[in-house]
Amino acid sequence: MRQQMIDMVYRVQDEICDALMEIDTVDFREDIWERDEGGGGRSRVLSGGQVFEKAGVNVSVVHGTLEPEAARAMGGGHSLSDNDLDFFATGISLVLHPQNPMAPSVHANYRYFERGDGVKDGSWWFGGGADLTPSYLFKEDARFFHTTLKAVCDRHEVADYPKFKQWCDEYFHIPHRKEGRGIGGIFFDDLHSFDKQTCFNFVEDCASSFLSSYIPILDRRKDTPFNDRNKLWQQVRRGRYVEFNLVYDRGTTFGLRTNGRIESILMSLPLTARWEYCHEVEPDSEEEQLLDILMNPIDWA
Amino acid sequence: MRQQMIDMVYRVQDEICDALMEIDTVDFREDIWERDEGGGGRSRVLSGGQVFEKAGVNVSVVHGTLEPEAARAMGGGHSLSDNDLDFFATGISLVLHPQNPMAPSVHANYRYFERGDGVKDGSWWFGGGADLTPSYLFKEDARFFHTTLKAVCDRHEVADYPKFKQWCDEYFHIPHRKEGRGIGGIFFDDLHSFDKQTCFNFVEDCASSFLSSYIPILDRRKDTPFNDRNKLWQQVRRGRYVEFNLVYDRGTTFGLRTNGRIESILMSLPLTARWEYCHEVEPDSEEEQLLDILMNPIDWA
Repeated sequence: MRQQMIDMVYRVQDEICDALMEIDTVDFREDIWERDEGGGGRSRVLSGGQVFEKAGVNVSVVHGTLEPEAARAMGGGHSLSDNDLDFFATGISLVLHPQNPMAPSVHANYRYFERGDGVKDGSWWFGGGADLTPSYLFKEDARFFHTTLKAVCDRHEVADYPKFKQWCDEYFHIPHRKEGRGIGGIFFDDLHSFDKQTCFNFVEDCASSFLSSYIPILDRRKDTPFNDRNKLWQQVRRGRYVEFNLVYDRGTTFGLRTNGRIESILMSLPLTARWEYCHEVEPDSEEEQLLDILMNPIDWA
Repeated sequence: MRQQMIDMVYRVQDEICDALMEIDTVDFREDIWERDEGGGGRSRVLSGGQVFEKAGVNVSVVHGTLEPEAARAMGGGHSLSDNDLDFFATGISLVLHPQNPMAPSVHANYRYFERGDGVKDGSWWFGGGADLTPSYLFKEDARFFHTTLKAVCDRHEVADYPKFKQWCDEYFHIPHRKEGRGIGGIFFDDLHSFDKQTCFNFVEDCASSFLSSYIPILDRRKDTPFNDRNKLWQQVRRGRYVEFNLVYDRGTTFGLRTNGRIESILMSLPLTARWEYCHEVEPDSEEEQLLDILMNPIDWA
């Protein structure tokens, strides 16, 4: 399974980067990095493109021995003992921040973990998901994104779209703002139903479906005319994105505290962000329409 | 002491805001706010001025009953029992982010706490400090700022400049970047030597000396010519400021998790910030000179 997952994340990274380079004018910068404690990764980041302000697509394959505290923070492994500290983790993680405020940011992440022997119950699991973060709400985009993800889930017995959709809304929530980071998608963790191959088939299908869930939306919005007010609102929303990632995101906070590769962890942050004191949206504006949905998530699929 | 401290922070807020309004062209927006659980505050924030990109000067006077966990997170009170949950806190907090990348950001904060009866040992203490965050290092500015703070400390037996300077370097540290947020200043907490009046006299002297420690620096730098590279570097440094405040600053993270007034807590964030992937400074550049000092703090006074 380790090799199957590694092959998959590298293949999908190539596919996604190839597709994005056809859309934008700027090449990805590639960094192959190694981790002192074992393993490494391949980070690809594009910045200041015509279409993308910033786009990062990373894979990592890491292994080693965890501190007990880190093992607990890793999640999963509920039936393991504190002696099962050997670990293996591989995954793909991507964040795209388009220039155009009408085109939504998107995030996806698919990963496989082993702790202990990777064979016995609780010693392996999958996690992941994808979610969309618009500055302006286009209902057809939200419906399209969720419908595509639901179709993937519906093809696999291990997947439960309503549960994963709810989990996503709960995870990507900014408590101090009482709003979601975006309009959601799917999120799942500690997935170990049936057997490894069955779970992998679902995760591979998710990762392989990423482009078809997002590129049609990007194509529709990337050249939409916009004004200064739209751009300002996008920058304010990017500030909220930073707030979520730095204060609440478990992957980010865990990585910062455990000597991860900082630039790969923080590639998820937008290129630019803004904090306006007491920013308020106008009543009945498009900005308020987005906020309403972020504060009261609805079903899209 | 409660009333003495309240009068002081309101007076100093007026003095500082008056002085800043003589320097900049934009007025402060004032918000008087109340806290459901008891108390409130007066926030003053100026945004998009000619001199300041953002400037916030807040006072708050809050009281109520703490949850035991919040009481522990509040610090101080080492000899108190878990029954001493009544609290009173008042303070002034300010953050100034100038437009000109040659002019440093500055932060200062002075506060008084009571927990329990506010009389017995451990049930009252002062905290505070001031620190400077330049994007470009001007040694004379760093020396001036520290020398002014040292002079205040030297006037008071309760103060220990070398200890408070060291404490500041340790507190305003960004572990994942292995660098300080800025070039430091002073930081102290749980100050309860001698008696309340003696401690107050020091804290009042600090707060009253703020303008004289910073305004001469601002005057020297606010009209310095700069180029796009300087502005970009300032924006990258602002990103680091955001990283520190959202990930590590105890006041910020505590406020976000305990239903504080969000806009007053986050007024410390700069108006704009930037995250360049793998940003590197040129060897022997002015940017590298700053980084060297942030990674290896030195004595300035």
